[in-house]
Amino acid sequence: MNAPVKIETQPWRMSAAEASALILARKMSVEELTRSCLARIAERDADVKAWAWLDPDRAVRKARELDKVLIHAGPKSRLHGIPFGVKDMIDTAEMPTTNNSPIYAENQPSHDANVVRIMKAHGAFVLGKTDTVEFAAGGRKALTRNPHDFARTPGGSSSGSGAAVGDYQVPIAFGTQTGGSHIRPASFNGCYGIKPTHNTISWSGARHLSPTLDTLGWYGRSVDDLIMVAEAVRVWGIAELAPVSVAGLKVGFARTSNWVKAEPATVDAMERARSLLAAAGAIVTDLELPAPFSGLNDAQRVVMNGEGRVQFLPDYLQNYELLHEDFRKKVENAEGFTPAQLLAAWDLAAACRPVFDGLFGPDLDVILTPSSCGEAPFNPSETTGDAVMNSMWTLLHVPTVNIPGHTGPNGLPVGVTLAGPRLGDARLLAISKAVAPVIDPLAA
Amino acid sequence: MNAPVKIETQPWRMSAAEASALILARKMSVEELTRSCLARIAERDADVKAWAWLDPDRAVRKARELDKVLIHAGPKSRLHGIPFGVKDMIDTAEMPTTNNSPIYAENQPSHDANVVRIMKAHGAFVLGKTDTVEFAAGGRKALTRNPHDFARTPGGSSSGSGAAVGDYQVPIAFGTQTGGSHIRPASFNGCYGIKPTHNTISWSGARHLSPTLDTLGWYGRSVDDLIMVAEAVRVWGIAELAPVSVAGLKVGFARTSNWVKAEPATVDAMERARSLLAAAGAIVTDLELPAPFSGLNDAQRVVMNGEGRVQFLPDYLQNYELLHEDFRKKVENAEGFTPAQLLAAWDLAAACRPVFDGLFGPDLDVILTPSSCGEAPFNPSETTGDAVMNSMWTLLHVPTVNIPGHTGPNGLPVGVTLAGPRLGDARLLAISKAVAPVIDPLAA
Repeated sequence: MNAPVKIETQPWRMSAAEASALILARKMSVEELTRSCLARIAERDADVKAWAWLDPDRAVRKARELDKVLIHAGPKSRLHGIPFGVKDMIDTAEMPTTNNSPIYAENQPSHDANVVRIMKAHGAFVLGKTDTVEFAAGGRKALTRNPHDFARTPGGSSSGSGAAVGDYQVPIAFGTQTGGSHIRPASFNGCYGIKPTHNTISWSGARHLSPTLDTLGWYGRSVDDLIMVAEAVRVWGIAELAPVSVAGLKVGFARTSNWVKAEPATVDAMERARSLLAAAGAIVTDLELPAPFSGLNDAQRVVMNGEGRVQFLPDYLQNYELLHEDFRKKVENAEGFTPAQLLAAWDLAAACRPVFDGLFGPDLDVILTPSSCGEAPFNPSETTGDAVMNSMWTLLHVPTVNIPGHTGPNGLPVGVTLAGPRLGDARLLAISKAVAPVIDPLAA
Repeated sequence: MNAPVKIETQPWRMSAAEASALILARKMSVEELTRSCLARIAERDADVKAWAWLDPDRAVRKARELDKVLIHAGPKSRLHGIPFGVKDMIDTAEMPTTNNSPIYAENQPSHDANVVRIMKAHGAFVLGKTDTVEFAAGGRKALTRNPHDFARTPGGSSSGSGAAVGDYQVPIAFGTQTGGSHIRPASFNGCYGIKPTHNTISWSGARHLSPTLDTLGWYGRSVDDLIMVAEAVRVWGIAELAPVSVAGLKVGFARTSNWVKAEPATVDAMERARSLLAAAGAIVTDLELPAPFSGLNDAQRVVMNGEGRVQFLPDYLQNYELLHEDFRKKVENAEGFTPAQLLAAWDLAAACRPVFDGLFGPDLDVILTPSSCGEAPFNPSETTGDAVMNSMWTLLHVPTVNIPGHTGPNGLPVGVTLAGPRLGDARLLAISKAVAPVIDPLAA
């Protein structure tokens, strides 16, 4: 157990929203925030290993530049001066992008990914690259350890981003999800995270595994942090965000067909959330998804492999020796997925999507469902945990938010997921903002 | 009218498959083929303007290198030494990629797009970049003119790729389709082209407009050319391609709800194809698509704009002054598309896809449908023609092949489209190979 002590005055401890308020009020400089984060990283990262690339001097120079802009031209946005981490399979023009693959060990892209460009245009800056499972898909694990217990995984594939935010090394970081790569690390590291509706955030510049599934997301220390980024990337409806009250909120308690995989820590996290929400006036009722939804996890696996087959073909042809066996097998379709299976998987998902959206309305505002099977498992070099609680939502394309606040029997964070209908991201964030203080003591 | 005279012995006149056979048999060098293409380009391109970037010396050097490899190590594949064109919104590491946008006038990507890497790994080489409508999406037109009548458009947005192959300047070129950007130029320029099933060819390294629609395709001089590339990119089932006979082939004659836009040239092209196929023993019957399909063209427009909104956001924020008004409007959602419309459009398409696939079976092998409204219209700086005959198929994700062979009243080519079910690309190519000699005198 290495949980950090809460010290309100340390900039590294602040959420992006808190830091932003001080920066915009000229009560804290970007350099102060950055140096504080760097100090936290210096103290912690030999153990946590969240970062694949980080140059402290460069970060300080960047911070000073942004301080100057602030003084002479004013803030570019609320994100002005906020450092953020970028999963190391998302391209950055000023830092390498290794994909945690030996093929790309020296890889320096010419262009920033779209999401990095958008953040920079808002005055935020890339602190560094965060370690990832190889190609965010298989092969090598990240070196990252869970900041709450170094013997455990931070989850994956967005291992470094989840751990860096969960460990207070950086307030915001970007990750991706194809199965459970974004929300599971949020659960394991104890941070907020959103996986938005599919195809509403430009993926360009990130490494594809399966375009039907691949979704960019981001981590923050609070729902406000998630909202700040949502504003920058122009999530549908975010400009008209209306506050939501927990009193009267209709919450569907969705165990789903994956409940058999829920460990006591997750059962507790779910029951605790149910009790706290009910005590705060929410109306929590059990929600059973229609029978076809139980096929979505298998369908997700078929889509991921059926589409992944061609994504690794260039490296298979050009860099076979350095391409991990996991990806060779994908190209060779070693598991023998058939076109008929792929069609059935695509179409099952497509049929379930409007059914899921249709659940929402006068009787349902949001779904409460697990973010992970339980606490982070041991052996980070062997496992990043199980995506079973997340992959259905990825395939359904629906927005999900991880809310931390529960602690498992071993003292590790265990999150719960709030899910809404497709393109309901803004309202889901409003609901999350209301729900967070009820579930998360740090947000209360 | 500037239709080239057919001279069998000129290498530039050959299909990729014909050239490949000679190269592999050591009866023609890569350099000979390349110099011949360059001579054709030198003769024609001042008028056709297919190329956005081309360095003849570089091409010859590349050809010589590939001749050496051929002699010392043997061919890398059937594509060894075949030059190809790349639409100038698909990244190339050794040539600029301008997107025909002033923002990217000097843009040199660090990496080849995946499809370029795959072609290179097979021994093919990039001859040059072909002009495109700005971002393959709107704004500026390509400078390219229709090689059959310089006063007319070659179609768009894959203007240069379609014209270069149609004008015998290069045997193969890559394009993309979001509405009708790939098949329409094939029709207008008189070449073969395939738009494969969506998400079966890696898009990575090409510029996105709308990920649900964006589909990479390629042009060739024959169905064999299309098959050669299909083998390289590993289209599902291509390795087990079984020959098809036109005798007994069940062809659905699909006017679709867009038939009102069919000009006499397209009506003639369709009727001619019907007669020729019937005379060759095919069973051609009228096929009416279910009523909901008439909503797909509108849905395509909603998806394109609803998703396009975020694709141009980085340039909107960073390069506003240089960003064409067309794209500013997309970012600003000037047409006021709503999330509800986007959901309805996504779900209409998703519901129609399995219905369309279900049409195929014992009673239907392939659909015959227009490739364009008619001959290429005049005023290439004003219009690239209408995508109405193509956009439904793009949204349905189904493979389509343009078969040339008909000539309109003004002597311009007018193609017809063969369409098959999703992931039926290999069989569609086999059918196209059987159908082409029936419809296209040059393939007979």
